[in-house]
Amino acid sequence: MQAQLIALDWGTSSLRAYKLGPAGVVLEQRSLAFGIMHLPNEPREIAGVRCSDGFELAFDAACGDWLDAQPNLPVIACGMVGSAQGWSEAAYRNTPVDVAGLGQALHRVRSLRGVDVHIVPGVIEQVGLPNVMRGEETQVLGVLQTLAMNGELLIGLPGSHSKWVEVVEGRITHFDTFMTGELFAVLSKHSILGRTQQISEQFQAEAFDRGVAVALSTDGRRGVLSTLFSARTLGLTAELTPDQQPDYLSGLLIGHELAGLPGGAKHQPIILVGAAPLCARYQRALALCGFAHVSLAQEATERGLWQLAVAAGLTQPVSEA
Amino acid sequence: MQAQLIALDWGTSSLRAYKLGPAGVVLEQRSLAFGIMHLPNEPREIAGVRCSDGFELAFDAACGDWLDAQPNLPVIACGMVGSAQGWSEAAYRNTPVDVAGLGQALHRVRSLRGVDVHIVPGVIEQVGLPNVMRGEETQVLGVLQTLAMNGELLIGLPGSHSKWVEVVEGRITHFDTFMTGELFAVLSKHSILGRTQQISEQFQAEAFDRGVAVALSTDGRRGVLSTLFSARTLGLTAELTPDQQPDYLSGLLIGHELAGLPGGAKHQPIILVGAAPLCARYQRALALCGFAHVSLAQEATERGLWQLAVAAGLTQPVSEA
Repeated sequence: MQAQLIALDWGTSSLRAYKLGPAGVVLEQRSLAFGIMHLPNEPREIAGVRCSDGFELAFDAACGDWLDAQPNLPVIACGMVGSAQGWSEAAYRNTPVDVAGLGQALHRVRSLRGVDVHIVPGVIEQVGLPNVMRGEETQVLGVLQTLAMNGELLIGLPGSHSKWVEVVEGRITHFDTFMTGELFAVLSKHSILGRTQQISEQFQAEAFDRGVAVALSTDGRRGVLSTLFSARTLGLTAELTPDQQPDYLSGLLIGHELAGLPGGAKHQPIILVGAAPLCARYQRALALCGFAHVSLAQEATERGLWQLAVAAGLTQPVSEA
Repeated sequence: MQAQLIALDWGTSSLRAYKLGPAGVVLEQRSLAFGIMHLPNEPREIAGVRCSDGFELAFDAACGDWLDAQPNLPVIACGMVGSAQGWSEAAYRNTPVDVAGLGQALHRVRSLRGVDVHIVPGVIEQVGLPNVMRGEETQVLGVLQTLAMNGELLIGLPGSHSKWVEVVEGRITHFDTFMTGELFAVLSKHSILGRTQQISEQFQAEAFDRGVAVALSTDGRRGVLSTLFSARTLGLTAELTPDQQPDYLSGLLIGHELAGLPGGAKHQPIILVGAAPLCARYQRALALCGFAHVSLAQEATERGLWQLAVAAGLTQPVSEA
């Protein structure tokens, strides 16, 4: 099948490239470690020019051969590549924002080989504490595209910086960011809690559930700064073995995150998008917290990028063949 | 003046030694970097024996010359030196605990030079989530000794792991631990928040106050996992300069800690013990949070150690001369 679009999901620590065919079907995909903070730096020749620019080098590594084969393939990208530290800054759009409409606001950067890369703008919320996203807006669109419904829903995107996005009739009306994943990582690597932890090969379900329960308990109301220390003291009192401590901490942090969601969300449809093992943790914790209507979405990024490229006229919604 | 007691405040990262004279007056004091996680390891001769034990070496460095001059001086120590990772484990005492009575429960370890070191036991709370302290119980006693009152009070001991101790008529009835200081350190050093921070020589009062206010706001009710990201986004929107970001984060974390204190504490006497610059931050934040009766205590550790040594009969309350 002939390719119709190159779609890049280009974040801080990784770069995923998709070659999409008619109707957005994935023909080929690659994952590279070249996030915008980890760009390659070994100069090489691109389009006849010796190049040392990290973005050009990463772009070439991700899809240079696809473009050699089909030089006119359009390219779209989302994520931190459009940030101030990215390849070229795509200004944020303010909430409330119609996600499908972001296709009208793509920002172009011309690559060395003459191909334009169309970057999806991020979204900023400036009511109350400011909040930003880059990449998640595209996933939200990808989720919406697969739904039969069109009312209010809450989309959860767990990760280093988990996002919880409130969507009303195709518009992002509000979102929050929780630094849960990054906090778990820095506490495990650099704090006293890591010293007694031992990585378990098995998921320690009981310890995870206990962490969630503590976050929801009266003790949990004092906040995570207070409950964190229990990941150590429950070890001291032999109530948690070293290999249970990481999953206890994971459950505790995710539990505190979920306790921070709006109360009304318990009866709203919730859709999770992200890496399968992490979504499984969130799904388990959501059930323990009493959230009733949780489902998972797949391939949200590629679907969202495809939709935006169609909206921008970069490609055709269905094959012309 | 003749010395009457050697008192050691021996924690994880530092070792403070006091030579105390009649009535507990401080004759001399020293601060060494030899906390139990940073012991010296260069073998040397102690009392005629070649020694490579880190605790013996640190003890000798802290007060060997004082003991050479007065070999019969009694020695008392509090802090992590009595933990499982310490010199010798002094079993925890359960809450509720009469702090003055801890003098009856000192744990002895004999040093190479034949002198006994009397270690104060830590305190454990096992109702609900377990909680532990080592060293703070001695500071609590030191605070109580200076007070004319004897009712209910709340003692705050800010630090890497802040403790908030409820005391009723000389007994520790309950306490909480907040990992505020350590979290501030690991986030500043190892998370994305540190990347845009710049250390300021001046205390950035406005940014600190703003952090406290955010913790107390409606946004703050979602918890610290959610508000943390604002230390980054307020930078992105140019509402915080890089040199304001550390104090904003400090105010935010301290504000969340104080929001976790029992509501009734607003009208209780609160006494702060700790390093002066840190206590000043807490005093400022407590005022912003509406805590009405806050005061500072000085020299709590040395006073507490003296009291415990007297209770144990290691020294006389007043000079016999």
